[in-house]
Amino acid sequence: MKLVTFLHNGQERIGAVTGGGRVLDFHAGDKRLAVDMLTLIRRQDALMPLARALAAEAPASAFLEVGQVTFLAPVPRPVSMRDGYAFRQHVATARRNRGLEMIPEFDLFPVTYFTNHQAVAGPGPVEVLDHHLRRLDYELEVAAVLGRPLKNATLAQADEAIFGFMVMNDWSARHLQMEEMKLSLGPCKGKDFATSLGPWLVTCDELPLEPTPQGRVLRARMTASVNGRLLSDGEAASMNWTFAQILQRTSYGVQMHPGEVVGSGTVGTGCLLELNGSKVTDDLWLKDGDFVVMEVQGLGRLENTVTRAEGIDLPPELVALGPRSPLP
Amino acid sequence: MKLVTFLHNGQERIGAVTGGGRVLDFHAGDKRLAVDMLTLIRRQDALMPLARALAAEAPASAFLEVGQVTFLAPVPRPVSMRDGYAFRQHVATARRNRGLEMIPEFDLFPVTYFTNHQAVAGPGPVEVLDHHLRRLDYELEVAAVLGRPLKNATLAQADEAIFGFMVMNDWSARHLQMEEMKLSLGPCKGKDFATSLGPWLVTCDELPLEPTPQGRVLRARMTASVNGRLLSDGEAASMNWTFAQILQRTSYGVQMHPGEVVGSGTVGTGCLLELNGSKVTDDLWLKDGDFVVMEVQGLGRLENTVTRAEGIDLPPELVALGPRSPLP
Repeated sequence: MKLVTFLHNGQERIGAVTGGGRVLDFHAGDKRLAVDMLTLIRRQDALMPLARALAAEAPASAFLEVGQVTFLAPVPRPVSMRDGYAFRQHVATARRNRGLEMIPEFDLFPVTYFTNHQAVAGPGPVEVLDHHLRRLDYELEVAAVLGRPLKNATLAQADEAIFGFMVMNDWSARHLQMEEMKLSLGPCKGKDFATSLGPWLVTCDELPLEPTPQGRVLRARMTASVNGRLLSDGEAASMNWTFAQILQRTSYGVQMHPGEVVGSGTVGTGCLLELNGSKVTDDLWLKDGDFVVMEVQGLGRLENTVTRAEGIDLPPELVALGPRSPLP
Repeated sequence: MKLVTFLHNGQERIGAVTGGGRVLDFHAGDKRLAVDMLTLIRRQDALMPLARALAAEAPASAFLEVGQVTFLAPVPRPVSMRDGYAFRQHVATARRNRGLEMIPEFDLFPVTYFTNHQAVAGPGPVEVLDHHLRRLDYELEVAAVLGRPLKNATLAQADEAIFGFMVMNDWSARHLQMEEMKLSLGPCKGKDFATSLGPWLVTCDELPLEPTPQGRVLRARMTASVNGRLLSDGEAASMNWTFAQILQRTSYGVQMHPGEVVGSGTVGTGCLLELNGSKVTDDLWLKDGDFVVMEVQGLGRLENTVTRAEGIDLPPELVALGPRSPLP
């Protein structure tokens, strides 16, 4: 199913986008499905059969036209948000552009980092401040949603625990990110202000997932364009670490829960940091009003507009005061 | 107040530790206070006056002896968990031990990273696996709990939004951490398995907070010992970035919520990574059974025992299979 979370008459609802492009409102079709997406995922054994039954024979009154709803992120309140680094092409190119060699540890284990699970956005405007607009970038990714508890998982357990996939745009403020990463703690303010997910959360049964010894691999073209200009064009099946491998490692010594989200990392060609300095673009960064469209075969089309928020800036106190000396 | 979360007869309760060392059970004293710690924080304007009134004249039946309860982390389910890097001495020493110079950006802004808010532990056993025991370390910190919504805050707003403070032990598996940090995304598996908080969440009014132009500073000796041997001895007032400055930066462009937790970073001398190679210790790392005690004046004494979990290890598949090549 292509599951969605949306606003209708000011109310948050979940449902599914159907073949005809209309929205099946679960709340209107079956009161037992009047829950949020996290609850649907947590209670999938009881609720997903009801959702599938409803989709098979829903009354006309349960459908809405796309124009009647505002899509939110399919999982607007993820339990946590990690992001990976699984495409070697992205890592190698982004480093080469900065005169750096590939990192040998890339081939030893899949890494992730935690990012802000409370800054999830769906399609639509993405609000940014002036410091974000200093080399603002997108990152074209696929995100997996965990559907089962997981701890110290085998590869097979990790693979089976995946509930579904979404398109993910890991907005990145490169100036903030590059400055803070000199402190070695990874990206934080460079990526904490927004991560866009959507428009759909597509369950595994609907997707061309190919089995490999390392777990299932999604075969899907991934593209991104800015103001109609195609800039990124990659393939999900070029992930060098599978989601099963990533989840196996993240679950080591850690109790994971349904509703946690893990991003793939950026696909090769999937961000301006990687493209800048190449023949594709020459120091092109996002600006206020830019229209960014990401499309992943089977996962839908995520459309966002960069929107500068007025009158807010990093307060001057930090720079003016600087760090303090210890109290005497 | 010295607020606590505890188990009594298998039930999670909140309460306060009183001068006499007994535990005031809020649930037993006033049914309106039969909530969890996050709810108390979120509804502090309504509930904290009730809690203070109860503490002033609670019936004897509302008290429990310490031996009747098991203390959990005061905030067992933080909304998020960030950790800072605010003590220059720790950063400078840990880098010098590895032959690295101080980072100039340390003096430009306070950094944080996100860690696993779902792996919070209180006092008591801390379960670790074999890979964690490869150079297992503690980190002696103070954590602040946010009590008010915060976005694009001024220094004063950030300072006033702090609800209270806790002792924090940011357990660190240095082998995992050092390997993964070569990928530049910061620590993840090295710190995602456990963060201990407690035993108390102390409200600001009970603490010696000294005003400075950069916000209030806690003056409190911070110590850590392993199996009775005092190893770390620092001072909270030596933080070079205040919590107000840290929260001002984390709130830039980000809606923060009551119940988010932010660690200070490690105090100078506050971990074995920093002490090893010095005169204090010579390549001493934590092992199964070690008893780690942290004490911060006014915030109480956090006691943990390192406990190796049997029979679980990083599965061999990752190493055996390695990364995959893109599908043809």
